[in-house]
Amino acid sequence: MLTITLLGTAATMPLPDRALSAAFAACGGHGLLWDCGEGTQAAAHRAGVNLMRADAICLTHYHGDHIFGLPGLLQTLGAQGRTRPLALLGPEGLSDIWAAVRALTGPLPYPVKPQVLMPGQPLALDALSEGWPAGARLVPFATKHRVKSLGYRLELPRAGKFSPEQARALGVPVQQWKLLQKGQSVAVEGRTVQPVQVLGAPRRGLSVVFSGDTAPCPGLLQAAQDADLLLCDATYALPEQEAQARQWGHSTFGQSAALAAQAGAKRLWLTHYSPMITDPEEYAEQAQGIFPAAECGFDGKSITLQYEEVQP
Amino acid sequence: MLTITLLGTAATMPLPDRALSAAFAACGGHGLLWDCGEGTQAAAHRAGVNLMRADAICLTHYHGDHIFGLPGLLQTLGAQGRTRPLALLGPEGLSDIWAAVRALTGPLPYPVKPQVLMPGQPLALDALSEGWPAGARLVPFATKHRVKSLGYRLELPRAGKFSPEQARALGVPVQQWKLLQKGQSVAVEGRTVQPVQVLGAPRRGLSVVFSGDTAPCPGLLQAAQDADLLLCDATYALPEQEAQARQWGHSTFGQSAALAAQAGAKRLWLTHYSPMITDPEEYAEQAQGIFPAAECGFDGKSITLQYEEVQP
Repeated sequence: MLTITLLGTAATMPLPDRALSAAFAACGGHGLLWDCGEGTQAAAHRAGVNLMRADAICLTHYHGDHIFGLPGLLQTLGAQGRTRPLALLGPEGLSDIWAAVRALTGPLPYPVKPQVLMPGQPLALDALSEGWPAGARLVPFATKHRVKSLGYRLELPRAGKFSPEQARALGVPVQQWKLLQKGQSVAVEGRTVQPVQVLGAPRRGLSVVFSGDTAPCPGLLQAAQDADLLLCDATYALPEQEAQARQWGHSTFGQSAALAAQAGAKRLWLTHYSPMITDPEEYAEQAQGIFPAAECGFDGKSITLQYEEVQP
Repeated sequence: MLTITLLGTAATMPLPDRALSAAFAACGGHGLLWDCGEGTQAAAHRAGVNLMRADAICLTHYHGDHIFGLPGLLQTLGAQGRTRPLALLGPEGLSDIWAAVRALTGPLPYPVKPQVLMPGQPLALDALSEGWPAGARLVPFATKHRVKSLGYRLELPRAGKFSPEQARALGVPVQQWKLLQKGQSVAVEGRTVQPVQVLGAPRRGLSVVFSGDTAPCPGLLQAAQDADLLLCDATYALPEQEAQARQWGHSTFGQSAALAAQAGAKRLWLTHYSPMITDPEEYAEQAQGIFPAAECGFDGKSITLQYEEVQP
C-alpha cells in the first residue's frame, strides 16, 4: 500500500494556490519526498502529510523551484524533534547545494546524509530504514532538462503468495515463516528451505514514477513502463508550445500523455505547470484525448495504491 | 501616503494560513520589504502586493523564519524582468548569508547590493531610489534577541506647507518651486531664496516601526515614540509566558501593548505568533486591555496611512 500526494504543482514561481514542485510517497510510517520547492512545508500541513516520516528527500535537479523549501523544512524537522538520519539524494552537484543549505540552516539536531545517485543505480530502501517492504527500491534515471537531472521510479515488489501448508509440510517453525516471506532461506533440522519452496510466483507490485523536469526522453519512457502512476512534467498546455518546451527541457500536456500511453502506465498526473496556466483543467482534454487515464494534478491531490488482488 | 501590508505573521514554521515573517511598506511606486520568510512571495501575490517595487529588503536578523524566502524571491524578481539594483540590508553577518543565498540562486539579472547597517545610523532612502519623498529615511535600532538583531523605523518627514503667494512675491519662477518644496535653495536673479522663506512650519510626517524579534527593550521603546504604526513581536499570548518570552528574546501580547502605550504609538499590530497560537483574536484582549488601539495582525492585513490634515 502506497499513498502518493502532490504537494506542489507550480513551476518557476509559487502562486497562492500552487506551491512549487514537491510530492510525497508514503508507505506505512515511512516515506520519500520528491523535490522540495518553496511552500512544501505549508502544502504538506494543508494536505495532512507528515513529513517527519520522510526517510529521504530525493532531488531531481537544483533549480530553485525544486529546492528552495529545503532550508525551512530541515529546520522544522529539527524543531519537531527529529533525531533520526535523513538521506538527501540527488544528481551530481549535490555537495555544493548541501553546503549552501547548511550555511543557511546552521547545525541541525539530526544527521543529514547527502548521497549522489547515478542513473540506473537503484537504491535499496531498506538501507535507509527498516520500515520499507523487502525489495523496495528507488531507481534514478536520466532525464532531459537544461542541467544534469534525474527522475525517480519507486518500486515496491511483491513476493508470491506464501503457502502455510507447504511451510508446515517442510517442517518450518512458524517463527521462521517471516524470513521466508521476506525472501530469505532458513535452516530446518539440517536442511535448507528456500523461499521458492513456499512462495507462489511473484505477484504484481506497485511502481510510481516522478519525472522531475524533462522533455520526453528514453529514460522516462523506460522508467514509466507499466507504472501504476506517472507524475509528469506538463509545463506547457498546448501542442503549439512543443518547440518552447523542447528549448527549456520540459513537456506539454500532450507529450506527457503520449509517453504515458506508449509506456503502458496505468495513470498519469500532470504537474509542474507554467504560471501562464491559470486553470489546468481547461486543457485536460489535451492529455485525455491521447491518454484517457490522464488527470490534472493539483496541490494536495492524493491516491492510495493497493496491491492488485488477482482472482484465482 | 504609506501603505503597510503584513505578508507573514508566523514564527518558527509556516502554517497553512500564516506565512513566515515579512511586511511591505509601499510609498508611491517604491517600497521596502521587512524580512523575507518562506512564503513571502505567495503571500504578496495573495495580498496584491507587487514586490518588484521593493528598493530594499531589510533583514532584522538571520534566523531561518525571517530569511528563507529570499532565494526564491530573488529569482522571481529576475524572472519578472528586474534589472534595477536591490539593496539587501541587515545587521552584521550579512556577507555569510548573502554568500549562501547567492550560491543557491546562481547569477541574477540585476545587482543585489548587500549593506550592513548599524543601530542608530539612518539610511537616506533617496540614496536607494529617487522615488522616495525628500528626507525619507530608514532608522535601524538595536533589539534584544538571542542573536545580533535590528528593528527598523521608517520615517517620512513632511515639510511645512508651501506658499505660492510667498514664492511669487519673491519672484521664484514656477519651475523652481519643486526644488524649494524638496528643501533646496534656489537662485533668483542673483539672490538666494531659502526653503524656509516659502514653507510653513514642518508638519507631522509618518512613521512605522517593524520590531523584528525582540523582548521589550530601550531601543524599541525609543523607536516607537509617536509612531503611526508599530508592527511588534507578539510571539506569546499570555502574561504567564513572560519568562519564556524573555528566555527566547521575544515579547508577549501584553508586553507589546505596554510598550506601545508607553511610547505613545498610534496603532499596534501584533505579529510573529508562535505556532501554539491557533487564533490570535482569542487573546486580543491581552493587548487591548493595556493599549486599546492594539490589533491582531494577520497575513494580508493592510493599512494606508495618510498625512494628517490639521484644520487651521
